Amino acid sequence: MRLGEAADESRRSLKWQARRQAIIDVSASVFARRGYHATGISELCLANDLGKGALYHYIGSKEELLAAIHDRVMDEVMLGAERVAAAGGSPSVQLARLGDELLDVIARYPDHVWVFLHEFPALTGERADQFRVRRREYERRVETTVQGGIDAGEFRPVDPRLTALAWLGMHNYTYLWLKPGGRLSARDVAKPFADIFIGGITR
Amino acid sequence: MRLGEAADESRRSLKWQARRQAIIDVSASVFARRGYHATGISELCLANDLGKGALYHYIGSKEELLAAIHDRVMDEVMLGAERVAAAGGSPSVQLARLGDELLDVIARYPDHVWVFLHEFPALTGERADQFRVRRREYERRVETTVQGGIDAGEFRPVDPRLTALAWLGMHNYTYLWLKPGGRLSARDVAKPFADIFIGGITR
Repeated sequence: MRLGEAADESRRSLKWQARRQAIIDVSASVFARRGYHATGISELCLANDLGKGALYHYIGSKEELLAAIHDRVMDEVMLGAERVAAAGGSPSVQLARLGDELLDVIARYPDHVWVFLHEFPALTGERADQFRVRRREYERRVETTVQGGIDAGEFRPVDPRLTALAWLGMHNYTYLWLKPGGRLSARDVAKPFADIFIGGITR
Repeated sequence: MRLGEAADESRRSLKWQARRQAIIDVSASVFARRGYHATGISELCLANDLGKGALYHYIGSKEELLAAIHDRVMDEVMLGAERVAAAGGSPSVQLARLGDELLDVIARYPDHVWVFLHEFPALTGERADQFRVRRREYERRVETTVQGGIDAGEFRPVDPRLTALAWLGMHNYTYLWLKPGGRLSARDVAKPFADIFIGGITR
């Protein structure tokens, strides 16, 4: 392949990726409104303005599309967790920042998160395993931060797993009412949530 | 109607109610496993060992069944809230008891609660309105308890609505992992949750 051809190929691939991403985003809003099982391929074709063959060219299968929606959420959530780890700071500061980042993803991707939280049981086999592994990885970040706070004497000797589950519930559940352009922004919510939660486990 | 006939009628009605309740419970587990939209009337007939005509005699429509599942959860949740109000006590004590009661319902009705939290958008018209009213009524109980704590000087001057939403999230989200016969009972979870939450808003 000559240099010009390679550049053409790379441009095509970027264009393909961007189109695939757009299909994932549009389909997330269809699934959020209608439910995964109730949505047929023909509805996805209509929403994405694509024929069946073209849709399959980008997504392979309906379940692959669902997995891609889950990955989109988990990619963002893990990126946020990486930023928090890179920034460092005390366990309290890190837990507050994890909350900022998580609520930011929930506010920016309401449809994806809705699908993520409601339709994960529809993933099967390897896709279900991979999803569980990624989800567990994030939960461990929260647990480790709590454990770090206990070890440093900042937090009371709480059960790190149960405390992480309480924290996740409080934050994840905002998907029901935290909406882009709503009365409250992610930041408006993150601070009082951190004050309650961290206040409640601080020694 | 003679007395004997009235008694017969009343016995029939109790039997009808009990059978209807059993159908609601069985159907909740079918919806929880398969999803509301994906479940057909014939599947519900099979699970309940009833013909189509008999099923409709008890439940009227699939949406009425969904509403009945929601009502079953809300009846239990509101009964718990009534017990808490009747027992009285300080706002901290009442908030802790509300948590006990809510987690108890979630642990006892995992399938109903799953359907409640995942499928409520499928309710339409008056049924959707009624569901929103009942849900809002319970949320107000939590808000009022928080406001009572602020007024009494027990709690910091938090935003009662946002604080109630944080509390609801932390408790409701346990539906994903709090199971009957699981490692942790509702009571095992309620106490540490109350310690975190009430600790976090206490002045």
